[in-house]
Amino acid sequence: MQYIYINCMLELVIFKDNIMTMPDFEKQGGLVPVITQEYKTGDVLMLAYMNKDSFLKTLETGKVCYWSRSRNKFWLKGEESGHFQILKDMYIDCDNDTILVKVEQVGDVACHTGKRSCFYRKFSKETNDFEK
Amino acid sequence: MQYIYINCMLELVIFKDNIMTMPDFEKQGGLVPVITQEYKTGDVLMLAYMNKDSFLKTLETGKVCYWSRSRNKFWLKGEESGHFQILKDMYIDCDNDTILVKVEQVGDVACHTGKRSCFYRKFSKETNDFEK
Repeated sequence: MQYIYINCMLELVIFKDNIMTMPDFEKQGGLVPVITQEYKTGDVLMLAYMNKDSFLKTLETGKVCYWSRSRNKFWLKGEESGHFQILKDMYIDCDNDTILVKVEQVGDVACHTGKRSCFYRKFSKETNDFEK
Repeated sequence: MQYIYINCMLELVIFKDNIMTMPDFEKQGGLVPVITQEYKTGDVLMLAYMNKDSFLKTLETGKVCYWSRSRNKFWLKGEESGHFQILKDMYIDCDNDTILVKVEQVGDVACHTGKRSCFYRKFSKETNDFEK
């Protein structure tokens, strides 16, 4: 059993070293914005931030991890709610400073309000305001 | 003709005053991140930033305006390339600090590289790197 454990640790290090392109974390104080999109419908679910650690953990585990700016800590999405996000695909933009993840949203709820998406308030031309 | 001109100016002021919910521009030094999505396909085209002025101009004109962080100036998307973004819908998120716009992308090119979307580099598990 000890052999297997050591083997896993080695793979982890090699995996991290093998990533050639890293997002430009320096541009925004160690964080990059991450757009999260539901992989089947294309619906945008949320925008959050990753630091280097959560970026690497997302690729290693296949579950999307962020950096919580409000709680100032590593955040495995779904760790409390169970609403994990299973990574399907990841993209980086032309400037290397924004990530797009396509996910399977467990429970079909991404927002802390219980809504599917954080973007549920549409601008209405009739009221000149966003819907509540 | 002068009457018509004055009338337009008044409408503009009233329009600005009538917006009830303003994005939280203070959180990120006067800017909010904006996710831009092609309204028919749902493809995410880019992420950029708006200040209060570009936010209001976008709603007034129906063409998406940003704040260019690299050039540090107001940016009507397409003003040089002709690749304007026609606003179809706008959403604000649960925290009031991120905007999602659904647009018709003129020329079907949003990225300064000439690509359709800025997110054309997909992470490959085979190479452990983003595609070039």
